[in-house]
Amino acid sequence: MTSILELPEREALSLTDIDASFVKTVLTPYRESCRYLKKAYFQQQEDLGIQGMLMNGEFSIPESCYIDDTGHFNAVEYNICYNQIAYVHLGYCIKNGLIPELGDYDPDLFFEKQLSNFLIANLNSGFQSLINAKRFYGTFGIHTVKKRPAVCF
Amino acid sequence: MTSILELPEREALSLTDIDASFVKTVLTPYRESCRYLKKAYFQQQEDLGIQGMLMNGEFSIPESCYIDDTGHFNAVEYNICYNQIAYVHLGYCIKNGLIPELGDYDPDLFFEKQLSNFLIANLNSGFQSLINAKRFYGTFGIHTVKKRPAVCF
Repeated sequence: MTSILELPEREALSLTDIDASFVKTVLTPYRESCRYLKKAYFQQQEDLGIQGMLMNGEFSIPESCYIDDTGHFNAVEYNICYNQIAYVHLGYCIKNGLIPELGDYDPDLFFEKQLSNFLIANLNSGFQSLINAKRFYGTFGIHTVKKRPAVCF
Repeated sequence: MTSILELPEREALSLTDIDASFVKTVLTPYRESCRYLKKAYFQQQEDLGIQGMLMNGEFSIPESCYIDDTGHFNAVEYNICYNQIAYVHLGYCIKNGLIPELGDYDPDLFFEKQLSNFLIANLNSGFQSLINAKRFYGTFGIHTVKKRPAVCF
């Protein structure tokens, strides 16, 4: 008998760089000065399903697009960054058929409906300390998907 | 005996238009195209203390400052509008000495520290239905103030 816990073998983690051109296309609706997501890569651990898929991003806000320098990363910028990495994640997952509940979308339909059909119902953001807006990192993932007749949460 | 409940007499509600020039000064740090708060008026019911003070605002977003038209009022714009009316409320209350816990501030110090010293620790926004961004109304109020040695919540 041993006291060492044997963890089940996990499938290897795969990391994929997202093409800069794909990121650029997803961020097309944003004003040039508001494209804060600079680089993204996709992380997948297949045996964990949707929770095993994460989009990691490198962000930079040299100058805010809407206000003078506040001296810190702020809640509005957080929201813009959140949206940008969420769009890249959803766009990438749709392109690669990774979320069956979004099977009605193909890349063309995603880009057509990107702004009108993807809505935030609730947003909660909290800040423990000041973040340097010049360079920071963020990760986006989906915990659960619920499909309703007209809407997918 | 009567079954009609007699409510205690309440002090009259006062309504004050906020000078357009004051709103303009408070919104100075915002890019011209991001000044969504168009008009504000202050509502006060003195016997209710801080909870009796509300800032009402008329907003308009003819064109988003950061993204192409999404067809709906969105969470980022909500956050910007929230900040603008909060700044007007705080600025007005400081100017008129209405919040004793902010007694260290006078209008000059408020405008000097407006961006650096006023921070969002938590933000929660929820949306039940689509809102027309071209014209809408909002109200800002403070429920409770807690003063700590270095911070006022």
